[in-house]
Amino acid sequence: MYSLGLRTLKIPLRLYEENRFRLCEKLKNILGEKAVGAVVLLKGGDEVPIDATDITHVFRQESFFNWAFGVREPGFYGAIHLGSGKSTLFMPLLPEDYAVWMGHIETPEECRHKYQVNEVRYVKDIAEVLTQQKADLLLTLNGVNTDSNLSYKGAEFEGIENFNVDKDILFPEMSECRVYKSPLELEIMRYVTKLSSDAHIEVMKTMKPGMMEYQGEATFLAYCYKYGGCRHVGYTCICGSGSSGSILHYGHAGAPNEKPVMDGDMLLFDMGAEYCGYDSDITCSFPANGVFTEKQKVIYNAVLRANRAVIAAVKPGVSWTDMHLLANRVMLEDLKKADIVKGDVEEMMKCHLAAVFQPHGLGHLIGLDTHDVGGYIPGKTPERPKAPGLRSLRTARILQAGMCITVEPGCYFNDYSLNKALKDPTLSKYLNQEKIDEYRNFGGVRIEDDIYINENGCEVLSIVPRTIEEIEATMAEGANKKI
Amino acid sequence: MYSLGLRTLKIPLRLYEENRFRLCEKLKNILGEKAVGAVVLLKGGDEVPIDATDITHVFRQESFFNWAFGVREPGFYGAIHLGSGKSTLFMPLLPEDYAVWMGHIETPEECRHKYQVNEVRYVKDIAEVLTQQKADLLLTLNGVNTDSNLSYKGAEFEGIENFNVDKDILFPEMSECRVYKSPLELEIMRYVTKLSSDAHIEVMKTMKPGMMEYQGEATFLAYCYKYGGCRHVGYTCICGSGSSGSILHYGHAGAPNEKPVMDGDMLLFDMGAEYCGYDSDITCSFPANGVFTEKQKVIYNAVLRANRAVIAAVKPGVSWTDMHLLANRVMLEDLKKADIVKGDVEEMMKCHLAAVFQPHGLGHLIGLDTHDVGGYIPGKTPERPKAPGLRSLRTARILQAGMCITVEPGCYFNDYSLNKALKDPTLSKYLNQEKIDEYRNFGGVRIEDDIYINENGCEVLSIVPRTIEEIEATMAEGANKKI
Ligand SMILES: [Mn+2]
Ligand SMILES: [Mn+2]
Repeated sequence: MYSLGLRTLKIPLRLYEENRFRLCEKLKNILGEKAVGAVVLLKGGDEVPIDATDITHVFRQESFFNWAFGVREPGFYGAIHLGSGKSTLFMPLLPEDYAVWMGHIETPEECRHKYQVNEVRYVKDIAEVLTQQKADLLLTLNGVNTDSNLSYKGAEFEGIENFNVDKDILFPEMSECRVYKSPLELEIMRYVTKLSSDAHIEVMKTMKPGMMEYQGEATFLAYCYKYGGCRHVGYTCICGSGSSGSILHYGHAGAPNEKPVMDGDMLLFDMGAEYCGYDSDITCSFPANGVFTEKQKVIYNAVLRANRAVIAAVKPGVSWTDMHLLANRVMLEDLKKADIVKGDVEEMMKCHLAAVFQPHGLGHLIGLDTHDVGGYIPGKTPERPKAPGLRSLRTARILQAGMCITVEPGCYFNDYSLNKALKDPTLSKYLNQEKIDEYRNFGGVRIEDDIYINENGCEVLSIVPRTIEEIEATMAEGANKKI
Repeated sequence: MYSLGLRTLKIPLRLYEENRFRLCEKLKNILGEKAVGAVVLLKGGDEVPIDATDITHVFRQESFFNWAFGVREPGFYGAIHLGSGKSTLFMPLLPEDYAVWMGHIETPEECRHKYQVNEVRYVKDIAEVLTQQKADLLLTLNGVNTDSNLSYKGAEFEGIENFNVDKDILFPEMSECRVYKSPLELEIMRYVTKLSSDAHIEVMKTMKPGMMEYQGEATFLAYCYKYGGCRHVGYTCICGSGSSGSILHYGHAGAPNEKPVMDGDMLLFDMGAEYCGYDSDITCSFPANGVFTEKQKVIYNAVLRANRAVIAAVKPGVSWTDMHLLANRVMLEDLKKADIVKGDVEEMMKCHLAAVFQPHGLGHLIGLDTHDVGGYIPGKTPERPKAPGLRSLRTARILQAGMCITVEPGCYFNDYSLNKALKDPTLSKYLNQEKIDEYRNFGGVRIEDDIYINENGCEVLSIVPRTIEEIEATMAEGANKKI
């Protein structure tokens, strides 16, 4: 049972047993008779030092390993024997006197009890144990993350050269498993997303003109940790105000949420907590001073209508690419009503005009990674589209029950993007430059919800004020609140 | 000028110019005529991805590079030409369309203005620029960090094989420079340590039995960020309660401050903010319920007397090893009065009995790293001692004006450490086992201050309640405070 006390969620270890079972079933189907002696071998994460110092980044377990075993410490390996279904963890053998620095050093038996696996041995004994288990095929995790283009580099250990290792089968199958959330996983997604929602509401109630953007980040982090036991967030907080809201990855080292928030600024805050490794990802957009201007209402409502249209339309069998296009179309219709774009919306769709205002994809799978794995699996899922906007989609899948995905249409007035489009005759004919220039320092609006696809449509996991009336009422409530 | 608005400290770029000047003077003395064409070449830090995902750890600039240039973004190089004293930064060349994700992409001229160096070029042009500068000797940063045993791996770039590279000279000299804080650096150390002090006071006022340890961590992190602009802390927060206080690196992934705080627990909270790369490191020990028991008073006052004795004794010319021994002696005297140890204190000192209760060193240099570089420089500073306790010292230097160092005596009742000593006849004869058993679940006390060595003695930078009366008064003040 994993829990951090107070009102934090209790997670039974059965979650990991079920995950391993799901994976085994899948692999046995593929391997047939060869499954009898096959063993899945995974390597857990190691602590990462900061440069060459003795300080490390706060440890976060590698997501595939976490999915299969729920182990919280660095330096582990894990094996699942397909023939018997038995799971074995391999723990690092620490010197006795580490007890002074690390506390009681668990025995293998204590560790076995803690993680409810069949056996726990030391990392140094991997080869010996696998030989005893008569492992005639090792499946290791090798593959490319389609969001980072970085590679998973499969478990290695002394003596691996004496085993028959397959590096191709495991990655796509395990990624596919991770795409579908079990009921216990869904419980965590609900918990962490509700917690993040409440933290966003706290930020909404406390942000005021004159504060610094990073104070919103600080409020969010504190809320999630103090009241929800979340030591980590899924990604660096994005707290853009005014024109910074048009920078999609604002908050990075070169622009670390360090602008003062001004009266009249639109705020775009994209933040999500992580609990037990599972992530949430929510964006709220709201006026710094608590009251929307007419201009802010126009853009906000265009994005909200796109968000709502998608949430109403999703269900098993629907293509995510079509949802992206639906959001684009709804937004363009509203931008046309506001005289920001002009002409025929269907023509605009054909030349991907929406990508000028929303260069990113509609949303992404979410789970143990914020941008969860399984978006594109060669030979199994639709390929990445090539058109502007669409090519930024992190998946082009057909939705199925069990998936968690974000719905995050946005509309940004980014100078680089606008200037490029205004110079392009195929696009500029739809753009009302005069009107656009009025919005030059507007920044952006993104409305991002996390949803779970069920048989009937979807469950919206994020619960935050979304209409203009709701947001203004929430901010009015917080008007006298001190941070 | 670096500042994060509000009441955060403003840091002039002159700080880095002065640091570079100090380094140049040192190197010119060593190199003599060879300095004319010599160039110091440093590589800044890169972003570190979390496993193979597209999420990165929040970027923190590498400390040597930060010391010399104050650059806040990843992917830079920097060169200092010793002959001319001119400094050049090399920035990464980003694709134009990154503007959508990262915001306005600075030109080299904008970057030159921002960091006040003589020239800014692109990383791809390093070889060309160094050739133009007639660099006939490159000094790169290669060496071993004596706290981590990890290596600094010197700058490399395409074409480096055409240059004459020295990998030995720079590391010890630059480390030596970092040991002595300039007046501008001292200002930052004062700021970040005062801020951390105030955050500790906030924690002291809000912690109550029934809360979780990590809520103290959350309160500290939020305070430092919200009111001081500190996105980072110098190290993972240690928030031990009860027996967890005896685990020196408590708070790590396997024990992430997750115990409920109980009535009667002693708390040991070791936390320090980081501002502009500079770290503080403060430990406060206090009773969870706000009132010391008699037992808690005994141990607390023993450690406090050790801390105060050192602070009174430090001055230029004093050996840090002697200070460690002074703290040990004072603590043993008090433990003897309390009947926890018995016999002659001088004899106890000879067999290093204090290391049973305080296995760690008295303190460490502090600056851009929490455990700052320069503790041991082969051939230049006293070698690491070999005796128990002393061998954990991170430096054995003779103190000099300009150094920042922590003073952190401690007394822990760690089962592993006590049981081992009780089995060792040379140690056990001084131990009163019956009395020790009464303290078995006590945990520990550490009292850690950050000091600056000046001509007359020292300035204590940390400003927190230290006497029992001060702590109880502070906690009484916070008794009705909600977190
Ligand atoms: Mn997202
Ligand atoms: Mn310390």
